[in-house]
Amino acid sequence: MNFTITKPNQALKSALVDKINHKTKPLGALGMLEAVALQIGLMQQSLEPKLTHPTMLVFAGDHGIVEAGVSPYPQAVTAQMVLNFLQGGAAINVFTTQNNIRLRVVDAGVNHQFADNANLINAKIAPGTRNFLAEAAMTTSQCESAIEKGAKIVDAEIAAGCNVFAFGEMGIGNTSSASCLMSVLCGLPLEDCVGRGTGLDDAGLHHKTNILAQAIAHHALNQDDAEQVLATFGGFEIAMMVGAMLQAAASGCTLLIDGFITTAALLVAAKLQPNILHYCVFTHCSNEAGHQKMLAFLNVKPLLNIDLRLGEGTGAALAYPLVNASVNFLNQMASFESAKVSQKT
Amino acid sequence: MNFTITKPNQALKSALVDKINHKTKPLGALGMLEAVALQIGLMQQSLEPKLTHPTMLVFAGDHGIVEAGVSPYPQAVTAQMVLNFLQGGAAINVFTTQNNIRLRVVDAGVNHQFADNANLINAKIAPGTRNFLAEAAMTTSQCESAIEKGAKIVDAEIAAGCNVFAFGEMGIGNTSSASCLMSVLCGLPLEDCVGRGTGLDDAGLHHKTNILAQAIAHHALNQDDAEQVLATFGGFEIAMMVGAMLQAAASGCTLLIDGFITTAALLVAAKLQPNILHYCVFTHCSNEAGHQKMLAFLNVKPLLNIDLRLGEGTGAALAYPLVNASVNFLNQMASFESAKVSQKT
Repeated sequence: MNFTITKPNQALKSALVDKINHKTKPLGALGMLEAVALQIGLMQQSLEPKLTHPTMLVFAGDHGIVEAGVSPYPQAVTAQMVLNFLQGGAAINVFTTQNNIRLRVVDAGVNHQFADNANLINAKIAPGTRNFLAEAAMTTSQCESAIEKGAKIVDAEIAAGCNVFAFGEMGIGNTSSASCLMSVLCGLPLEDCVGRGTGLDDAGLHHKTNILAQAIAHHALNQDDAEQVLATFGGFEIAMMVGAMLQAAASGCTLLIDGFITTAALLVAAKLQPNILHYCVFTHCSNEAGHQKMLAFLNVKPLLNIDLRLGEGTGAALAYPLVNASVNFLNQMASFESAKVSQKT
Repeated sequence: MNFTITKPNQALKSALVDKINHKTKPLGALGMLEAVALQIGLMQQSLEPKLTHPTMLVFAGDHGIVEAGVSPYPQAVTAQMVLNFLQGGAAINVFTTQNNIRLRVVDAGVNHQFADNANLINAKIAPGTRNFLAEAAMTTSQCESAIEKGAKIVDAEIAAGCNVFAFGEMGIGNTSSASCLMSVLCGLPLEDCVGRGTGLDDAGLHHKTNILAQAIAHHALNQDDAEQVLATFGGFEIAMMVGAMLQAAASGCTLLIDGFITTAALLVAAKLQPNILHYCVFTHCSNEAGHQKMLAFLNVKPLLNIDLRLGEGTGAALAYPLVNASVNFLNQMASFESAKVSQKT
């Protein structure tokens, strides 16, 4: 599947900056919100950008690598948490409900057969990836299928009126996939990319790092072959998120990037289409060890730094009001002229 | 006026921590939100704390010190911005509306006679303070009157159902008051406490620092006489905020502390009643130079770091959804047991 993501035309930039600078506030006083307002104005090519039907897509999948003992939680937790999402009991339910974000859960490849549910999108590729310690997590055709399904899910939400997507994930073992993606795609030492995930102790972290080092050595991939790197380390939820991100940006939507796993998916997408970064708002820096370095690699500054390390899209859901506020101040604040407020002398 | 603020009884702490730890998430994965949930649970002495009728009080006042050329904006902007608040055109209007916070504007001492308005509380002490370069900004009785009026305003909002207060301010020249309060009350060099306010250039910053150094030397106050320090450097909006904060905490409410000026008011309140800090959530770190050092002096970590330096209470309004999310996850998330999710092995 081919995606074409273009850099937003910059011709509108000076008018947007001018509009921001004439609002009744000292120059630059809204800090990062001003940067977000400018960015969204450019991607929508509008002096009055709107965020419509904000939607959180949470992709879930299982991982063969958990056989190697890389997570302190059993694999069954992936399916149990998906059921928790569908029953409304998880953190992501609380935060999306609070902030008026529509939540859609996607079964990209969970090792469980779910009953039909209006809030669950069945896009299962297989009931979990293979163990990438021995072989590629997925076949090339599975990877392509996941990317395609991700893009179609986004198309359906755009047709329903959405122009701002948040991305989240659930998958026991998926920090292992993300660490390998990061190490290979960023060319960083594995030790900089591996963390405690859901809560490994020192021995567990040591074991995880060893296992992932073996896997990376075994596959010996070229960092420029991003799709092969993705297929090798998985998982299905990450690959489907890559397709969803590419399609959302190709359609001019705003992408709200969450934590470590979501940003790893973006690394893949950005290798394929570097212009995707113009459409991304980085919502938070996770406490998962590698995330700060991942954000530094991308040379971006996130909105929140509140020690989250939960995944599910929770950081994006929590930061959404700040993104919304950026657009709202641009549209709703008075100018010095309209409010008859004296300017700086 | 006397206030008595007690430290919340800590007996409930272990039950609150236990409730947080059994939510369906890795231990500690909600970071600072978990700390806020625990804090609000303790201050309300409840395992199911509620935030009711969130209210933003924006106190406005004028400052005699502007005669000395400490601000690049003319004094008239204070009244103009109050009118902007009442017409709904300012940043604080946009953010409080978005986040369902009731906005109340208080004329604590603006140099303008406002027409009656349902959203404006007339609590004017005088049409601006005196120039503290020559004499105390206000008399002791004016200061006491401001504190008392602040407390009464809070009482009225509590009677209307509010248990969470955000504090904001407007007053051309009030970073000068705040810098002097900070320097004297924290015992810090003035240079660490003075910043560019609404946008002074290097020459303006140098002039402001010189003027404030003269004022501090002239009055030669004892840092333990907080009420005298407050009366000396003003302003009316700060003194009234001190009374409002003290009364809100004495009533067990949650206090959302905004930026440089609001935190300076809290410094005064905390000198008088140190236990007030148990009731405060620090919402952001301002780009105004001294704020970071002020927060470090108080040994607190704010929720947001997004380069705001606007005042009006905007940081508190923007951070409110995070505070709300803290209480919501505590009340609404499923536990591992209720959601039948396996725990860490």
